[in-house]
Amino acid sequence: MASSTHPSAPCAACKFLRRKCIQGCVFSPYFPPEDPIKFTNVHKIFGASNVSKLLNEIAPHQREDAVNSLAYEAEARLKDPVYGCVGAISVLQRQVLRLQKELDATNADLIRFSSNQNTFNIPQSSGNNYPQNPHALPPNYGTYSWNYDP
Amino acid sequence: MASSTHPSAPCAACKFLRRKCIQGCVFSPYFPPEDPIKFTNVHKIFGASNVSKLLNEIAPHQREDAVNSLAYEAEARLKDPVYGCVGAISVLQRQVLRLQKELDATNADLIRFSSNQNTFNIPQSSGNNYPQNPHALPPNYGTYSWNYDP
Repeated sequence: MASSTHPSAPCAACKFLRRKCIQGCVFSPYFPPEDPIKFTNVHKIFGASNVSKLLNEIAPHQREDAVNSLAYEAEARLKDPVYGCVGAISVLQRQVLRLQKELDATNADLIRFSSNQNTFNIPQSSGNNYPQNPHALPPNYGTYSWNYDP
Repeated sequence: MASSTHPSAPCAACKFLRRKCIQGCVFSPYFPPEDPIKFTNVHKIFGASNVSKLLNEIAPHQREDAVNSLAYEAEARLKDPVYGCVGAISVLQRQVLRLQKELDATNADLIRFSSNQNTFNIPQSSGNNYPQNPHALPPNYGTYSWNYDP
């Protein structure tokens, strides 16, 4: 139930937790009543207390991004309890490696063309440059491994 | 403290939670005592109760992968409280799009070569094929967005 200082409907978090949604509620700006699933998912995976602690440790202007990334992780974990959004990371890492391999092969073809035909210059119009750091992947956290094979 | 039915040292979870590590402890196979940080991180982000529930819903042969993906997510969230491992997804998605663009441009260069020089055939040795589904990205969960700009 909304308090007199918070005239709108209680946020989805306070409604779910059956508590009064007071002004300054840490959840209210990010869990609107019209999207109850967002809080239910985040609560199920992380727990309301952990989310509240996390939000209080983050600058206000970054809280919306934090909640939305938590909601993404939570939904991914509910859809895939074993891998969660780490499955998406595995898919993307393989895609990066495959594309890099294809690009290497295509660049090798272009070099072969230009060396076989001296009068030919490699076209510059595309502005295509060999990537400076082709294997830059996101950081590896810990030493934990898994076999993701969808 | 290890019980008589569980002669080794208590697992990292039971040690942290100050409880007896009994035979059949759901945490024990995945949280060895020599890696206490793994449990501390997972507990801090997801909570012991949520992890225990999740493990009990997963087939035993998938639990190790599940715990390791949770540990990865937890470590990522502790290092980057705003984006967690969703930051890695953003980095990888951009990398895939950049590589795909570079590959498109390089393939266009190759086609330009072959059309300018009829006697030339595009070399086949690399086995390089245009990707059939160049924009296959992992599923989007929910409609939540964020501005990740490291």
